Amino acid sequence: MEQRITESFSRQSMMATFGAKIDLVEEGSVIISAPILEGSRQQQGVAHAALAFALGDTAAGYSALTLMPEDQEVMTAENKINLLAPGRGDLMRTTGRVLKPGRRLIVVSAEVYAIEDNRETLVAVLQGTMIPVPI
Amino acid sequence: MEQRITESFSRQSMMATFGAKIDLVEEGSVIISAPILEGSRQQQGVAHAALAFALGDTAAGYSALTLMPEDQEVMTAENKINLLAPGRGDLMRTTGRVLKPGRRLIVVSAEVYAIEDNRETLVAVLQGTMIPVPI
Amino acid sequence: MEQRITESFSRQSMMATFGAKIDLVEEGSVIISAPILEGSRQQQGVAHAALAFALGDTAAGYSALTLMPEDQEVMTAENKINLLAPGRGDLMRTTGRVLKPGRRLIVVSAEVYAIEDNRETLVAVLQGTMIPVPI
Amino acid sequence: MEQRITESFSRQSMMATFGAKIDLVEEGSVIISAPILEGSRQQQGVAHAALAFALGDTAAGYSALTLMPEDQEVMTAENKINLLAPGRGDLMRTTGRVLKPGRRLIVVSAEVYAIEDNRETLVAVLQGTMIPVPI
Repeated sequence: MEQRITESFSRQSMMATFGAKIDLVEEGSVIISAPILEGSRQQQGVAHAALAFALGDTAAGYSALTLMPEDQEVMTAENKINLLAPGRGDLMRTTGRVLKPGRRLIVVSAEVYAIEDNRETLVAVLQGTMIPVPI
Repeated sequence: MEQRITESFSRQSMMATFGAKIDLVEEGSVIISAPILEGSRQQQGVAHAALAFALGDTAAGYSALTLMPEDQEVMTAENKINLLAPGRGDLMRTTGRVLKPGRRLIVVSAEVYAIEDNRETLVAVLQGTMIPVPI
Repeated sequence: MEQRITESFSRQSMMATFGAKIDLVEEGSVIISAPILEGSRQQQGVAHAALAFALGDTAAGYSALTLMPEDQEVMTAENKINLLAPGRGDLMRTTGRVLKPGRRLIVVSAEVYAIEDNRETLVAVLQGTMIPVPI
Repeated sequence: MEQRITESFSRQSMMATFGAKIDLVEEGSVIISAPILEGSRQQQGVAHAALAFALGDTAAGYSALTLMPEDQEVMTAENKINLLAPGRGDLMRTTGRVLKPGRRLIVVSAEVYAIEDNRETLVAVLQGTMIPVPI
């Protein structure tokens, strides 16, 4: 399962653009982290909302994939993000989780933290839906 | 107004990373487009959901900014994206719009299109909330 | 198609509780209205957010049903509402629309208006997903 | 604090319509339950999505109110619900929680359970935003 997810992740060029990597794969849960690169910011110099979205959505998607049969992968049907605090610091880390697995829909969530001087701040929460697609 | 938005946009390094540019600024509406770069994709080779989110959220945010006094800018409080079709092709274009201006909250939407062989496909819709912040 | 939707609507006891009725059924679009009853309010005396949600979600669901084969109906997978203004007045009216039909998911939206002294105010917008279920 | 919330709740006629009551008030968290009345159903006889929304949104709103100064109350700015399972049984119970308090926005969540034959099923999750308003 871990190999499958690592392999899929390595084909997501967007994750490479953000310098993201997978920290943990468990059944129903995946942790992804990425530096807050110079090229990932909004006009005030903090992380762009889209970085939190990209990492949270991807971690949530892979948490769903941990529960999929081998002939299926997942795509995002919809996702909603609430931004709780500016994404300041060096690193972002997100945990994606399956809230409700299903044959046709998988409901997922993610929490996104920014890490500055070894202090974690919850910067975003996501709640969304993944849909299985044949490989 | 247009100058203000162009100047703010130029400080969003995430937009430079995606090769995005502003196509149109009107009161309450902003159009942004970007190529679907090699580095903006998911594991199947189409645009990552986060690209649609990034462009849609940014266009929606700047549509709100067109209505703000000069001593305020906006941040995303929350945004929800529904993905309607895979983001195939060369280009993505999005129109952000203000649905409801307000002193404390600005409700916005965005439609995101992918353009392949001169054919536009609606690939995502967003509905969200921007919040004014002092500059 | 109209008969099918009217018949299904008549079995929704929640719609009877709210005094709701169908005003229009077209392919991909349904209009529902309801009085703002004494029993549908929040603590300040205006319509409860759940009334706007109930009407908008139901109109959006039936707009999806207009496109379904006869052996399927729909259920709400998810829906998001932004409240734009307090629901004041005598009546609420909502138009539900299909944004993107699909075999597995139908993406929908709704606009909800409150009507006071013959003046319409847009009070809520919804964006959501319906899923087909066998009857 | 509990008295303040009970008093506000008693003025929500929508909650009376649904037969809802407050089970618990704690700082940052409120539990509400309601029978699944004959008048709260959709066309298949299970609870209408709007019942889960109404209870979850209200519990989330009151969880925010537990953190408000006495001269402010809250209104829903936006809320998103994912339906996880049909609402079958006799009773619905929801816990609303504050995810992130703030002076201008309070980000909240709620989990909604249906109870049938003493067995709880998670039927919906909500994630939304409350906004303070002067009383």
